[in-house]
Amino acid sequence: MTFSQRLRDAQRSANSLLCIGLDTDLEKIPKHLFAYGEPMYEFNRALIDATRDLVCAYKLNLAFYEAAGEQGWLALHRTLAHIPDHLITIGDGKRGDIGNSAEMYAQSLLDDDGFAACTVSPYMGEDSVRPFLKKSNRGVFVLALTSNSGARDFQYLRSKGAPLFEHVVRKVKRWNTKKNCGLVVGATRPRQLRHIRRLVPTMPLLIPGVGTQGGDLKNTVRFGCDRLGEMAVITASRSIIYASQKRDFAERARAEAQALRDQINTYREQFFPPAR
Amino acid sequence: MTFSQRLRDAQRSANSLLCIGLDTDLEKIPKHLFAYGEPMYEFNRALIDATRDLVCAYKLNLAFYEAAGEQGWLALHRTLAHIPDHLITIGDGKRGDIGNSAEMYAQSLLDDDGFAACTVSPYMGEDSVRPFLKKSNRGVFVLALTSNSGARDFQYLRSKGAPLFEHVVRKVKRWNTKKNCGLVVGATRPRQLRHIRRLVPTMPLLIPGVGTQGGDLKNTVRFGCDRLGEMAVITASRSIIYASQKRDFAERARAEAQALRDQINTYREQFFPPAR
Repeated sequence: MTFSQRLRDAQRSANSLLCIGLDTDLEKIPKHLFAYGEPMYEFNRALIDATRDLVCAYKLNLAFYEAAGEQGWLALHRTLAHIPDHLITIGDGKRGDIGNSAEMYAQSLLDDDGFAACTVSPYMGEDSVRPFLKKSNRGVFVLALTSNSGARDFQYLRSKGAPLFEHVVRKVKRWNTKKNCGLVVGATRPRQLRHIRRLVPTMPLLIPGVGTQGGDLKNTVRFGCDRLGEMAVITASRSIIYASQKRDFAERARAEAQALRDQINTYREQFFPPAR
Repeated sequence: MTFSQRLRDAQRSANSLLCIGLDTDLEKIPKHLFAYGEPMYEFNRALIDATRDLVCAYKLNLAFYEAAGEQGWLALHRTLAHIPDHLITIGDGKRGDIGNSAEMYAQSLLDDDGFAACTVSPYMGEDSVRPFLKKSNRGVFVLALTSNSGARDFQYLRSKGAPLFEHVVRKVKRWNTKKNCGLVVGATRPRQLRHIRRLVPTMPLLIPGVGTQGGDLKNTVRFGCDRLGEMAVITASRSIIYASQKRDFAERARAEAQALRDQINTYREQFFPPAR
């Protein structure tokens, strides 16, 4: 089964486009978890148990796990093993390197015990992305237009009548022969999101920026989905996982996740009524 | 002391612009090393002991260490601890992510026991690079023009009369207020290397691609150095570290490194005679 179909199945069975970002920071997790031997993992485990019926995917930002050293490495692997198989797991590392190094990254991120998908940076071009695309059932989300302020430095530079991010979108569309490509597009850019969705009508779009970063949820759903109201993976992290820093953190995270999932579904019903 | 000055000092005291890339691949290292508990580290240790007087820097490609999991993580840290303090260590991970994730990467790569410098990808712009630039004595090499074939996909796209890589160079020049920025420029692009050197007359340039990738060494020295015949960090990896896969690997690596260092110095004497 292609990654594209895996994602669609996960979204349908969960009735959810929501992806929770497990940006697990030892300085922000509830203090009582330090009574456990593996606080990072305990935090993730409790969050997953509390939200697994509300999401299509979990995204692990590799920066946070690397920063925690050996403990982080263990937490990452134990967390991956704890996420139910029918859900999509995304290793968010924004890797990008030449052939043999990219092979190594692809091998470590997308092996049999690894993630269902990962994120990569396009700057080094096709031969830096190609090694990640070998398995049709593993997805690769290529950075196109990011949600941060620095996106303006290079991603909007116009060349041959189109901004850099559009050149990236068009290239990725050509690399998508195995239906395993996706794009990262920030929720803070609704107009460009619509433009990109028109260029790639059915490709998975990973859309961060609706929570703490303040992206516009209504337009994210409206412009980010395909014609069936699917294939947008709407990611929130801090606004959910740090909803409380007390013992009720998992319960409060569930409430936040449910509210966001439901709001997304309300917009889906509004904008995509007949197809579902 | 600024990173720029640290690099200059390392190059002068070693009389070398050579950087050895420790792209240590468990499938390529000599088989007899598996008799040791930590073959990756043993390989690196032997190479460092055999070449430490010939180089200004060692570069560790993080992809190879991540792919080896926990063993890789340990090997990386033990290797870092074994490299003499006066040499430059470069963590080559080509990271690039938004603010708080970049903070995490910066923290794990450039902490007190970490690398002297790292590589980052510019795609996400200033706020993805800024967290790496906090310490003036730690360097950040930003990808500008890479040595691989995929560089043509985006890095040469022209906008406002200049290719994307030149926009990156000009931005990095503005970010260099602490004298800790550098650029990655492939040795396979001598004409563009000359152009970039003119834009940043004294900035450190990390130049891969002279070994297995076949870059032109003479023009790399000629166009990559500053006016004193310094500040080019010429990196070779596979051609040195896998010179032999037998018990003589370290000895053969030394011979390769010495030949390359000497050839670089011959060109330095040719092109930069009066200043040294």
